[in-house]
Amino acid sequence: MSRNWQALIDEIHHDAQVAFGSGKVASYIPALARVNPRLFGISLATVDGEQVSAGNAHTLFSIQSVSKVFTLALALRDIGESLWEHVGREPSGNKFNSLIQLEHEHGVPRNPFINAGALAVADQLTAHSANARGKLLRFMSDLCGRAVQFDYAVAKSEAQTGHRNAALAHFMKSFGVLEGQVADVLDAYFHQCAIAMSTAELARAALFLANRGVQPGTNEVVLSPLQTRRINALMLTCGLYDAVGEFAYQVGLPAKSGVGGGIIAVVPGKLIIAVFSPELNASGNSCVGVEALKLFVERTGLSVF
Amino acid sequence: MSRNWQALIDEIHHDAQVAFGSGKVASYIPALARVNPRLFGISLATVDGEQVSAGNAHTLFSIQSVSKVFTLALALRDIGESLWEHVGREPSGNKFNSLIQLEHEHGVPRNPFINAGALAVADQLTAHSANARGKLLRFMSDLCGRAVQFDYAVAKSEAQTGHRNAALAHFMKSFGVLEGQVADVLDAYFHQCAIAMSTAELARAALFLANRGVQPGTNEVVLSPLQTRRINALMLTCGLYDAVGEFAYQVGLPAKSGVGGGIIAVVPGKLIIAVFSPELNASGNSCVGVEALKLFVERTGLSVF
Amino acid sequence: MSRNWQALIDEIHHDAQVAFGSGKVASYIPALARVNPRLFGISLATVDGEQVSAGNAHTLFSIQSVSKVFTLALALRDIGESLWEHVGREPSGNKFNSLIQLEHEHGVPRNPFINAGALAVADQLTAHSANARGKLLRFMSDLCGRAVQFDYAVAKSEAQTGHRNAALAHFMKSFGVLEGQVADVLDAYFHQCAIAMSTAELARAALFLANRGVQPGTNEVVLSPLQTRRINALMLTCGLYDAVGEFAYQVGLPAKSGVGGGIIAVVPGKLIIAVFSPELNASGNSCVGVEALKLFVERTGLSVF
Amino acid sequence: MSRNWQALIDEIHHDAQVAFGSGKVASYIPALARVNPRLFGISLATVDGEQVSAGNAHTLFSIQSVSKVFTLALALRDIGESLWEHVGREPSGNKFNSLIQLEHEHGVPRNPFINAGALAVADQLTAHSANARGKLLRFMSDLCGRAVQFDYAVAKSEAQTGHRNAALAHFMKSFGVLEGQVADVLDAYFHQCAIAMSTAELARAALFLANRGVQPGTNEVVLSPLQTRRINALMLTCGLYDAVGEFAYQVGLPAKSGVGGGIIAVVPGKLIIAVFSPELNASGNSCVGVEALKLFVERTGLSVF
Repeated sequence: MSRNWQALIDEIHHDAQVAFGSGKVASYIPALARVNPRLFGISLATVDGEQVSAGNAHTLFSIQSVSKVFTLALALRDIGESLWEHVGREPSGNKFNSLIQLEHEHGVPRNPFINAGALAVADQLTAHSANARGKLLRFMSDLCGRAVQFDYAVAKSEAQTGHRNAALAHFMKSFGVLEGQVADVLDAYFHQCAIAMSTAELARAALFLANRGVQPGTNEVVLSPLQTRRINALMLTCGLYDAVGEFAYQVGLPAKSGVGGGIIAVVPGKLIIAVFSPELNASGNSCVGVEALKLFVERTGLSVF
Repeated sequence: MSRNWQALIDEIHHDAQVAFGSGKVASYIPALARVNPRLFGISLATVDGEQVSAGNAHTLFSIQSVSKVFTLALALRDIGESLWEHVGREPSGNKFNSLIQLEHEHGVPRNPFINAGALAVADQLTAHSANARGKLLRFMSDLCGRAVQFDYAVAKSEAQTGHRNAALAHFMKSFGVLEGQVADVLDAYFHQCAIAMSTAELARAALFLANRGVQPGTNEVVLSPLQTRRINALMLTCGLYDAVGEFAYQVGLPAKSGVGGGIIAVVPGKLIIAVFSPELNASGNSCVGVEALKLFVERTGLSVF
Repeated sequence: MSRNWQALIDEIHHDAQVAFGSGKVASYIPALARVNPRLFGISLATVDGEQVSAGNAHTLFSIQSVSKVFTLALALRDIGESLWEHVGREPSGNKFNSLIQLEHEHGVPRNPFINAGALAVADQLTAHSANARGKLLRFMSDLCGRAVQFDYAVAKSEAQTGHRNAALAHFMKSFGVLEGQVADVLDAYFHQCAIAMSTAELARAALFLANRGVQPGTNEVVLSPLQTRRINALMLTCGLYDAVGEFAYQVGLPAKSGVGGGIIAVVPGKLIIAVFSPELNASGNSCVGVEALKLFVERTGLSVF
Repeated sequence: MSRNWQALIDEIHHDAQVAFGSGKVASYIPALARVNPRLFGISLATVDGEQVSAGNAHTLFSIQSVSKVFTLALALRDIGESLWEHVGREPSGNKFNSLIQLEHEHGVPRNPFINAGALAVADQLTAHSANARGKLLRFMSDLCGRAVQFDYAVAKSEAQTGHRNAALAHFMKSFGVLEGQVADVLDAYFHQCAIAMSTAELARAALFLANRGVQPGTNEVVLSPLQTRRINALMLTCGLYDAVGEFAYQVGLPAKSGVGGGIIAVVPGKLIIAVFSPELNASGNSCVGVEALKLFVERTGLSVF
């Protein structure tokens, strides 16, 4: 590729700031509420090894639900297809933390990107490893080439207020869908959400998703090509809370967002773009982040559609 | 009243046994599962002071959801009408432990006799008393004239397996409907369900419900006449899980059942009848108990309809 | 009974008028919307043959959902217990015209007093009679001793705007729950709702419900004692839309309301009281009518609880 | 493109037949039930003008829900973005003909590819045209270059049995979401489903979806590039009933299926592939058709992921 990625990213970083002020920082835990709303980082990493950034691309933030992509990848790598006995693969159509669908479907979550599904994945990781939290940190660190850490203050804060997630976990346990203890599953889940990373690190860490499962640089085979496509398909159909359809239209890339303000998007075969800006729209997705991804697709034509 | 209650109760005790074998003992916790399925006790207490019994009327059993009537009475007595800010008063139409309705109604349970509603009542009792468990035992002991106890083995067993109730409590907490800590509310709830009483004790304890709120014998004013009617109305419209309509037709008395196999029924102005037999029908109500109450109404005409 | 019913009814007619102005006349069809909101009729008929009235007790109004009691009685009389293969007998917990529960329960309505259930009853009446509309008029006329008529303007207006009922009927038809054609069932249903009667007529027509199924005066056996109890139980648990629990507490009598502003209530073994006043509260029940019934129970103690 | 498309399509036509016998022909109307289950046609058309086919590629079949793509395109072309006031753009998560979600969302369907959404689109087309049926036939005929017709026997059969669709339409009408008369909307909808086309015609007709909205050959601008991306995004997230996630993984192309056994799939920028084979899997998608599309993607790598 001969594009001048740096110039493009600089332009997008400049232009996407029009969206500042159109949303609200997540406030359900103090650790997230006190983040500076005007932060904005953007990074792009190609499968060829190029990486460019602009803005607060090295500021650590809470990756929150973006972690669901990585725990899913780790679970598919280590546990394999039997994972799907515990979680489905279809869009949910309901809010990310709804219990209604779960009751109708006897405790088996619809997909790994709603909270219930991520809890099921966390349960499987915990059941198959003596030190699931440590394993996840190593996985993330290996992918991005830096020692990644949990933000323990965020994890603790999530645990104290996470009654909806506790309800989901106990509910699944009541259906026999969780193997481990509820407390252990919640602990793993709250910690994965509290991983602190920058967009530069996230863009690099997710590259295997744009490269048929092989992490460029290390050439580590993280997933098979089919498993990688599975994750990308899930991201496109379930990755943006209840704005999946709108995002698929406006951006048209597999992506996963988190309430910390981060989003990663995949251009299959080519690159990862990661954005971070804390103000969220009504669907829980970063306002400036979504705007940046829209501009990216408008200016490159790199939508999958 | 000049009836020969003893002869009637003896007859019913004899005839209702045709229903043995038509249901199953509750098996979700070991402490309940190992109860002898052929136990059957029946007791009748009148507001005039008469009391008769037959069969295993002095065998202690786990009163389970029958306790919901007594915690509701205690909460109405001590907290008053503000209780209704935390729990509704309408039939639910869904299973007793469903989370669906709770989500649609933002965490406020439909009535005090579904599990979510009983948790809300337990929360209020806990929030208004330093020793809610002790207070409940005293309340029950005063009503029946004997020192009532928890079956701690049952309470512990419930706590270990009560994930559905934990889900309900965390869910309500996430909506801000519970004032106290989830663990405290669950502890109170699991203990109230584990109160061990006999039909003789239950019939006597519930007499105030047939006497406009005044407990015969002690003449203690437990509730106002209106509050008493409120409880009776709730029992008739919400007291028998999802067999409310069927029971209202076949028996036509305000009543509350529990999965321990107990049922209490109120003949307003006249008497209480309490039955116990562990085999449950598909709706979770005692098979022999329901049969006994049907026979009682057939032979006395004392339905409210 | 030696009460002075006339004096009581006069008092209640005077005192219940405090509730004028607290609700709104039904406006979904013009024929109902233009009714004078200050109309108020009240009638009481005893099983001993006494009948007293006050106010607009001889004004004809659209009985609307009060008709559901009579079509149910007629269906039970002529079709018998097989009716229950087409409609359930439990409280619904959802709005009277909801389709949600119907979908979960595969098209079988929860009870005969929600719209779906009344459509199922209308279907059975239509399927078992060449002239179901004429038969219903005769049934009502025989009960009240006057030639009862449909208000055809109301029926036509209902048909033109009754898309929710049409949706319910087509939905049940899609599940195979209706035997007849959707158009015929809707026609029967819209006409039964449009029956025009006065409180004096309604009180007399419903007397068999207070008299174990036998219509006083004619001594016609309309229903068996058990069937009668069934209807009374359904009225108490399902008769007042989503205010069943509240009404059971405040009044404590089997009753059925309609959006025309009418309500009939049963004192088993004794009497029927019928009220009519068009202003409806948020639950769709007559404000002045509910107030009148509350006063009646307060002053006579004739609640079933 | 220098591929030998004919050879590829011939191979796929041969190999995909392993899926014969794994499903059932739609049987809800006689006109569909009597189709020969062993039919299998496949056609591919490129934006460059090449077209190849194999098997029963010129056999006419009922396109059923595949029509939803074309009515959506026609409505977007003629009505524009105001269409979205009447129908949403997000995955539904419920069955294609569910009324539940519709009730929760006050009658506005979740997307144009569930039945309720297609009815809303049909309503808009009917409201904006004196002869909506004729206009649709011209639109389809212009796209595929042949005079397309309705199969009137199928349309009539749908109308006679389409109570679920009638329920949906009346339900939306009751919420004020439909502008036209229910009967007119249903008539338009049942006819659009009964359009008879071959895979050769469908592949050609849909080419504008692979060509940024411009129909190759005629160079007619059907839609803007953004509108085209919108439809493709909707197809990928909502086009395959409740197998969206699975199909996105296995095939990874925007696609729309119908119970007649047809599926069209879009390779953006390149081509359309259309398949037809009547046996349906449990999700209502053609077994052999899905198999053929899987093979196509395996052998060409032309998934969007």
